[in-house]
Amino acid sequence: MPELRRDPVTGRWVIIAPERRKRPDDFRVDRLAGLGREHCPFCAGHEDLTPPEICAYRPNGSARDTAGWDLRVVPNKFPALKVEGGLDREGDGIYDRMNGIGAHEVIIETPDHDRQLATMSEVEIERILHAYRDRILDLKQDRRLRYILVFKNHGAAAGATLEHAHSQLIALPIVPDFVREEIEGARRHFAEKERCVFCDMLRQELADGRRIVQENADVVALAPYAPRLPFETWLLPRRHGARFEEATRPEIEGLARLLKAVLRRIDRALESPPYNLIVHSAPFSEDSSECFHWHVELMPKLTRVAGFEWGTGFYINPTPPEEAAKVLRGVML
Amino acid sequence: MPELRRDPVTGRWVIIAPERRKRPDDFRVDRLAGLGREHCPFCAGHEDLTPPEICAYRPNGSARDTAGWDLRVVPNKFPALKVEGGLDREGDGIYDRMNGIGAHEVIIETPDHDRQLATMSEVEIERILHAYRDRILDLKQDRRLRYILVFKNHGAAAGATLEHAHSQLIALPIVPDFVREEIEGARRHFAEKERCVFCDMLRQELADGRRIVQENADVVALAPYAPRLPFETWLLPRRHGARFEEATRPEIEGLARLLKAVLRRIDRALESPPYNLIVHSAPFSEDSSECFHWHVELMPKLTRVAGFEWGTGFYINPTPPEEAAKVLRGVML
Repeated sequence: MPELRRDPVTGRWVIIAPERRKRPDDFRVDRLAGLGREHCPFCAGHEDLTPPEICAYRPNGSARDTAGWDLRVVPNKFPALKVEGGLDREGDGIYDRMNGIGAHEVIIETPDHDRQLATMSEVEIERILHAYRDRILDLKQDRRLRYILVFKNHGAAAGATLEHAHSQLIALPIVPDFVREEIEGARRHFAEKERCVFCDMLRQELADGRRIVQENADVVALAPYAPRLPFETWLLPRRHGARFEEATRPEIEGLARLLKAVLRRIDRALESPPYNLIVHSAPFSEDSSECFHWHVELMPKLTRVAGFEWGTGFYINPTPPEEAAKVLRGVML
Repeated sequence: MPELRRDPVTGRWVIIAPERRKRPDDFRVDRLAGLGREHCPFCAGHEDLTPPEICAYRPNGSARDTAGWDLRVVPNKFPALKVEGGLDREGDGIYDRMNGIGAHEVIIETPDHDRQLATMSEVEIERILHAYRDRILDLKQDRRLRYILVFKNHGAAAGATLEHAHSQLIALPIVPDFVREEIEGARRHFAEKERCVFCDMLRQELADGRRIVQENADVVALAPYAPRLPFETWLLPRRHGARFEEATRPEIEGLARLLKAVLRRIDRALESPPYNLIVHSAPFSEDSSECFHWHVELMPKLTRVAGFEWGTGFYINPTPPEEAAKVLRGVML
C-alpha cells in the first residue's frame, strides 16, 4: 500500500510508493522504455495491455477495452496512490502519515503511436483538455480527496517512461506543498489589495508586452517575471477563475489553440526539447475562488542543471524571460 | 549583471544570470565538459586557468596561484552573483528585483584530478569542511548578505560541469525559499513545544533505529522519515547548534568520518551514483539559534524522474527510508 508521509520540519508531504519499482532491489526505475509500437500498451488494439479503462471517447460507440477510441483513460499500472481503503491517518511520535488513498490515472491522448501534442490538431488537443476536466469533475465527488494534479511528462529527460503521448492525473488526500504556497501567496495579495495577483500580473504584462509570447481572445501565454527555468511559459485565461474544471468552452478552445502554437514555437526554437506541463488549479476542499487563478505551466528541460535546483528548490536561470519571449515570438509558424 | 527577481505569487526568489551561458544563443548550458586532466582548470599547475585565488591551504607556503596547494578556493568563472556594486532594490509594479550581489566561489577539494570525496582520507575531507567554515566566516562579515549556501554536485546528472572534485558556495542577499520553509517549520515546532524539531527527530530515530544508517560520537546519519528521493540521507550533529560554522573540531572530524563512510556505502550499494550534497545552516541575519539545527543532506540521483518532481516540488519516492537505511547499513566497508 502506498503511504503519504509528512516531513516534521517543513510540513512537506511525500508519497512513498514501493509498488512503483519493478523489483524490490531495483532502485533504477522509470527509464524510458523504448518499446516500439508492437509492444506499446497505449496503442490502439493493445487495450489488453493496460488495466480496464475508466472512460474513453468512442465516437462510433465501440465496446469498452477494444480499439475504436479517440482518447482513453486507464489506471496507472504502477500507481502512486490507490482508490481502495481508508485514510487511516495516524501519528508516530513527531511524524504523521496516512494511507496512500487517491487515484493515479493515465490519459492516453491518441491511439496513434507517432502523434505528439505539438503536432496534433486543435480539435485533438481540445479533446485532451476536455478529458482532464471530465476526470476532475468525476473524482472531486470523492470526499476523501483534496487536490487533483494533472500533468504531462514529454520525453525521457522530463520523466516520461513511455513515448506514446499521454498525460497523468493524481488525485490526493492532501494539498501538495507547491500548491499550498501558491494559494497562500495569492491569498496574501488578495487580503492586502482585494485583487487577484494573477489578474494584476496579466494586466501589467499585457501593458508591458516584453514577456508576452502569444495571446488570443481568451488565453495569454507569457514568460513569467521570475522563471525558474529557461523558456518556462505560463498560459493564463484572461477571465478570472480559480479552477480549471470551471473553464468555459471558448476558454478550452482558446487554450488548445495557444498550447499548440506555443509548443510549436518551443519545438522550432529549441529543437523539440523534453518538457513538463502542469495544470495549476485551486483545491476543491477550500474556498480560494476570489484569490486564485487557474493556469498551465510549461517547463522545457533544456539543461542538466537539475542537480542543485532539484534538491533545494532554489533556481539559477541563465535566460532572462524577456529574451525567451522574444525568441519564441520570433519563430515563424 | 546578474539579477534577483521575486515571483509575486509564491514569493520565491530566482537568480537570472545570463553570464552563465557561453553564447547568448546557447540555451544548452552546463554539460559535463570531458576536459581530461591536460585542460582541467582545477588541476595543480593549471592555476592560470582560473580567476586569481581567494584563499588556499598551502602547507609549504608556496606562492599564490602556483602549484603546491592542498585545497584552493577561486571565484566561479561564470558567476551567478557578483561582489561589486549596490543592491539597488526596486519595485516594478507588482514585481520586486535587486542586483545579483553576492559571491559564487568554487572550492577545489584536491589538486589531484582523479580523487573523489568518497575515496579521500578523513584528513582530506576535514580540510574541505574547514574550508567551508573559513569561507562562511569571512563572507558573513559582508552586511549585504543574508545566507550562504554550500553545496556539491557530483556527476553530470547531478549538475556537475567539471569532473575534478569541487564544491561550490553561493552567498546571497536573500534567504532562499527552501531555507525559509525549513526555518519557519522549525520555529513553529519550537513555539509550540520549546524544543528543537531536529533534536526531537534525532531522539526518536535513535530510539527506533530502523532509519539509522550509521552513527559516531558526534554525528548521526539517517534516512529521513519523509524522503523526497530514494536513499536521501541526512547527517546531523548530536549536539544542538544552528550554524555549520559554529561546529566544534570534534564535530567536524565526526562529520568527515561519517560522510566518508556513508558515501562509500552509497557507492557500493548503488554503483557510485551522481549526488548532491547540501549544507543546511541557519541564516546569520536573524536569530534562529534555539530552533534550527545545522545538518548535511545527501541526495543521490538514481532515477530520471526529475521531470514532474522538479516542476512541482512534490515527490513520489519508490524506496521506503527503512529499506534504504537497511541496504546502506548492510554494506561491508
